[in-house]
Amino acid sequence: MEAFRQAVVNTLERRLFYIPSFKIYRGVAGLYDYGPPGCAVKSNVLAFWRQHFVLEENMLEVDCPCVTPEVVLKASGHVDKFTDLMVKDEKTGTCYRADHLLKDFCKEKLEKDPKITEEKAAEFKHVIAVLDEFSAEELGSKIKEYGITAPDTKNPLSAPYPFNLMFQTSIGPSGVSPGYMRPETAQGIFVNFKDLYYYNGNKLPFAAAQIGQAFRNEISPRQGLLRVREFTLAEIEHFVDPEDKSHPKFSEVANLEFLMFPRQDQVSGQSARIIRLGEAVSGGIVNNETLGYFIGRVYLFLTYLGIDKERLRFRQHLANEMAHYAADCWDAEIECSYGWIECVGIADRSAYDLRAHTDKSGVPLVAAEKFAEPIEVEFSDPFFIYQKLVITPVKKELGLAFKGNQKMVVEALEAMGEKEAMEMKATLETKGEVEFQVCTLGKDVTIKKNMVTISKEKKKEHQRVFTPSVIEPSFGIGRIIYCLYEHSFYTRPSKGGDEQLNVFRFPPLVAPIKCTVFPLVQNQQYEEVAKRIAKSLTAAGISYKIDITGTSIGKRYARTDELGVPLAITVDSTTSVTLRERDSKQQIRVSLEEVASVVKEVTDGLNTWNDVLWKYPTHSAAATED
Amino acid sequence: MEAFRQAVVNTLERRLFYIPSFKIYRGVAGLYDYGPPGCAVKSNVLAFWRQHFVLEENMLEVDCPCVTPEVVLKASGHVDKFTDLMVKDEKTGTCYRADHLLKDFCKEKLEKDPKITEEKAAEFKHVIAVLDEFSAEELGSKIKEYGITAPDTKNPLSAPYPFNLMFQTSIGPSGVSPGYMRPETAQGIFVNFKDLYYYNGNKLPFAAAQIGQAFRNEISPRQGLLRVREFTLAEIEHFVDPEDKSHPKFSEVANLEFLMFPRQDQVSGQSARIIRLGEAVSGGIVNNETLGYFIGRVYLFLTYLGIDKERLRFRQHLANEMAHYAADCWDAEIECSYGWIECVGIADRSAYDLRAHTDKSGVPLVAAEKFAEPIEVEFSDPFFIYQKLVITPVKKELGLAFKGNQKMVVEALEAMGEKEAMEMKATLETKGEVEFQVCTLGKDVTIKKNMVTISKEKKKEHQRVFTPSVIEPSFGIGRIIYCLYEHSFYTRPSKGGDEQLNVFRFPPLVAPIKCTVFPLVQNQQYEEVAKRIAKSLTAAGISYKIDITGTSIGKRYARTDELGVPLAITVDSTTSVTLRERDSKQQIRVSLEEVASVVKEVTDGLNTWNDVLWKYPTHSAAATED
Repeated sequence: MEAFRQAVVNTLERRLFYIPSFKIYRGVAGLYDYGPPGCAVKSNVLAFWRQHFVLEENMLEVDCPCVTPEVVLKASGHVDKFTDLMVKDEKTGTCYRADHLLKDFCKEKLEKDPKITEEKAAEFKHVIAVLDEFSAEELGSKIKEYGITAPDTKNPLSAPYPFNLMFQTSIGPSGVSPGYMRPETAQGIFVNFKDLYYYNGNKLPFAAAQIGQAFRNEISPRQGLLRVREFTLAEIEHFVDPEDKSHPKFSEVANLEFLMFPRQDQVSGQSARIIRLGEAVSGGIVNNETLGYFIGRVYLFLTYLGIDKERLRFRQHLANEMAHYAADCWDAEIECSYGWIECVGIADRSAYDLRAHTDKSGVPLVAAEKFAEPIEVEFSDPFFIYQKLVITPVKKELGLAFKGNQKMVVEALEAMGEKEAMEMKATLETKGEVEFQVCTLGKDVTIKKNMVTISKEKKKEHQRVFTPSVIEPSFGIGRIIYCLYEHSFYTRPSKGGDEQLNVFRFPPLVAPIKCTVFPLVQNQQYEEVAKRIAKSLTAAGISYKIDITGTSIGKRYARTDELGVPLAITVDSTTSVTLRERDSKQQIRVSLEEVASVVKEVTDGLNTWNDVLWKYPTHSAAATED
Repeated sequence: MEAFRQAVVNTLERRLFYIPSFKIYRGVAGLYDYGPPGCAVKSNVLAFWRQHFVLEENMLEVDCPCVTPEVVLKASGHVDKFTDLMVKDEKTGTCYRADHLLKDFCKEKLEKDPKITEEKAAEFKHVIAVLDEFSAEELGSKIKEYGITAPDTKNPLSAPYPFNLMFQTSIGPSGVSPGYMRPETAQGIFVNFKDLYYYNGNKLPFAAAQIGQAFRNEISPRQGLLRVREFTLAEIEHFVDPEDKSHPKFSEVANLEFLMFPRQDQVSGQSARIIRLGEAVSGGIVNNETLGYFIGRVYLFLTYLGIDKERLRFRQHLANEMAHYAADCWDAEIECSYGWIECVGIADRSAYDLRAHTDKSGVPLVAAEKFAEPIEVEFSDPFFIYQKLVITPVKKELGLAFKGNQKMVVEALEAMGEKEAMEMKATLETKGEVEFQVCTLGKDVTIKKNMVTISKEKKKEHQRVFTPSVIEPSFGIGRIIYCLYEHSFYTRPSKGGDEQLNVFRFPPLVAPIKCTVFPLVQNQQYEEVAKRIAKSLTAAGISYKIDITGTSIGKRYARTDELGVPLAITVDSTTSVTLRERDSKQQIRVSLEEVASVVKEVTDGLNTWNDVLWKYPTHSAAATED
């Protein structure tokens, strides 16, 4: 596993799929650049994401800044709760994640200490399992109990304390407006809910989407490209009526079958199993159709990209993993050399986020369902009080009783708060009268049952106003791409058998370059043909690379396979060329005029390689491979 | 002008092209969101940028983080010099840009003070002209002289002092690694020069490109979307041999003619004039072919997008505007309601940036030209010392003179530094011998002329090593888009003549949505046809919107014109439809089967509207417009 990862990572770094950022200054942990092929892969993945989600579902895409004022992240809870627990080397000040140290300690004991008792082993396993639930105090006492010290120096460690993972900055020159680099893109959508709802014709459901950078000031980044301090997120916020989470297109994904790992299976120690999505929803495993629809769409997205469906599972959050407000939450986890990695989170966050911003901003982020005619309704949303207090002073009786003071008594009655009014109502019903203080008169008066009616009742309403629920699929693009690299990588022996050659089996959709063009030998004639082909490829909108180095054709094939280029055109005559497919190494002969359109058919996905294979004569020149 | 801008901006805000960020929290100056149509326009502009520059020129695209460690921005000069001069209200602490206050004061005097003398007027005009050159002291003394106070409170102001415009943060938990949000994307490319040069087969020229967010903590942002605190940059760094800045494709742009504003014309008070690009380069107005090539490509890029070529000019930097190291610099300026706005900077920055990072990192960021056979060369690059000191002890003579000590004398001679050796050479030439201290012997020895030859000469070299020059076109994407909005906006009377309707005349390339689909009346039959058309549009990869509201067709046309949608399909039968073009309002009848492909031809730019107009019957139903 370690060796496989090393082979992948070496290839990725050598071919500049990625580069540790600021390498000439010895880099910064957790920051990576995408080099040319990595950048092309990322841009292909994002273009497909936009096609698959934004365009096909008519989502409203927005683009908000990374710099975010404190008030927004205070409302979302990030200022107070977006923390990891940290311990410090008490002498050098070096910082560590407290849970990492404890986990590493337990793992090492389990793996390398032969004298460990069965009882102790069980304890260490238990600690690893419940680690995420530990409070600062619990972590601290475990670290003390096990005598864990700073890994680099063996110095004693401080008690664990929370470190906020947001990069903090200051907006404007005065230094009095704190801001943060956003830890997710979602908040930019939530604060725009009102405008987006209006843009959608005040209709639900609708989804907004955003692709952009997010930031997490990790305490000590590990796991290479999987845990980084800056990353691209692609997030969808699908707003839906909490009373109707059905989805009109659910039937399109209901028959998909794939690995799911429901909560109860995890608790009872079972493994993930293949479930039909339709059954998962109808059987209540997945909370609702809309959540189920997105699970299905995410499955299609990832597998189209080239993620191996046998190493992809949808794992439901355990009750204690989920925020208290969440209705249900599933992670798309992809297995790679680091284990099962969360790459997409798909959560029904109920009305939590919109309510948090309504509270903090005072701007109601709500939707309304208009009724055909006013009706008496039961409101399901406890956030809004629809039962209205109705106080109706009977002016005639009050006039008879209080004469010139009538107006002031009426006003005082109408000004009563809910509690006071309901108490008066109760007293009037039991005793028939009540003493009532009228401040403007400076004295109490006696109110009788016939002088006022008080009710708190359901009113007829013209519309139902409610806070929408939000279903949020959130994609860690860098993680998906890294897992894709591992799933796409394989090696095969060179023709001579003397070395192992690297190949990325990217589908054309993802491949950084769709096609390479090689003149078989260096001569002017072939180079001119290569240039003509290049022009026709540009005209067809196909990205390509020409390799006119004098290297052997076999070496040039190896070089292009290592970049995951699906097709190679070898110019070996002035009328027709050899077209070679990367994985099968099969070759066909295609005329100069046709080659660009054949390449386009295959790389656009209109035809597969097998479709074109039988149409053209096979080229057998196995000798050229080396 | 003010009214025109207000009309554009109102339309943009109402239709959510952009939204002041965090509006429900009263926003943050200088931060804006792109709403759905703005986001689509931006993504179209970036896709075209990638096509026009990255793909057509085979550039190496990279993607680097925004968070940047201090050392990188120290080397680039941003930590020390990326500042604006600021003054503070001495009582409230409110900050202002010193030059803005002075400029506003002079402008107001010129515009609103009728008693002003001619002499004073000339002085104010001069101040405005040279404002950018003022030092902190000069700005301060002018502010004092004119008695300028804080605009909001009339309180006295502090002396001007520099404020660094970078958002500062801290990387990692220890608080000892300062970092900044990058003020430009270029540095990420420079620090990767070595890897990219290698990726390009160690060959020059090549260009790297990057699209990404950049950040500027403006003191007091003004001018709406033109001066913001976070923005998208698209930058190209074209690395070239300083001795050969020719460009193989220059002839492709040499015949372009457009408005240029050379330095000498600005100084002598002339206006911008139309110059053929080929002449500008051959006449020495533009420094070199590569710079000229990019000026031409930028012209094509902007005008394809829809920028009015009569309100676009290329202005050369004045000598005092340009950094001392720059060889030449031109700004693509676009005229809008705010005046002429710098939207693209195209600079020949010579070797400055690579040398700065070579100095700071100790990693030589250089290129090498291999010679066919070693030759004696003159090196033009003063950054590297190629004249090698050659000390050749004559062992035979030294052996005769020093016997057993010969080895130590030889070693001492060879270890001489450049200065010492050149002094010895001079003395030997004038006096024939010299006293020489040999530390390992603990004594002086006498060296005679025949015992050593010392030379500092040009050596035969196998390669020429040099720091490449960089030519940098840098695009402010948000500014380009804002100017495009102004250039695309017009109004025309409604059919009834009772109101003015807004239109954006976006070319299909830029339009946020390519096509709308309207059932003429609300009935199930037409809605089903609309859905069938929608499916065929999706299959053809065309973005569209269906509007099934019962609003009049005229109102629906107005709504879609205001979004700049080029084509509208009205479903008014079950076999054929009406296809309407936005600007001409011409309508043709197209069959259901053909309509998606006709829309695709026009929006992909394969055909113009005029091309298809004569192929299909005209639909005359002017009555439908209202």
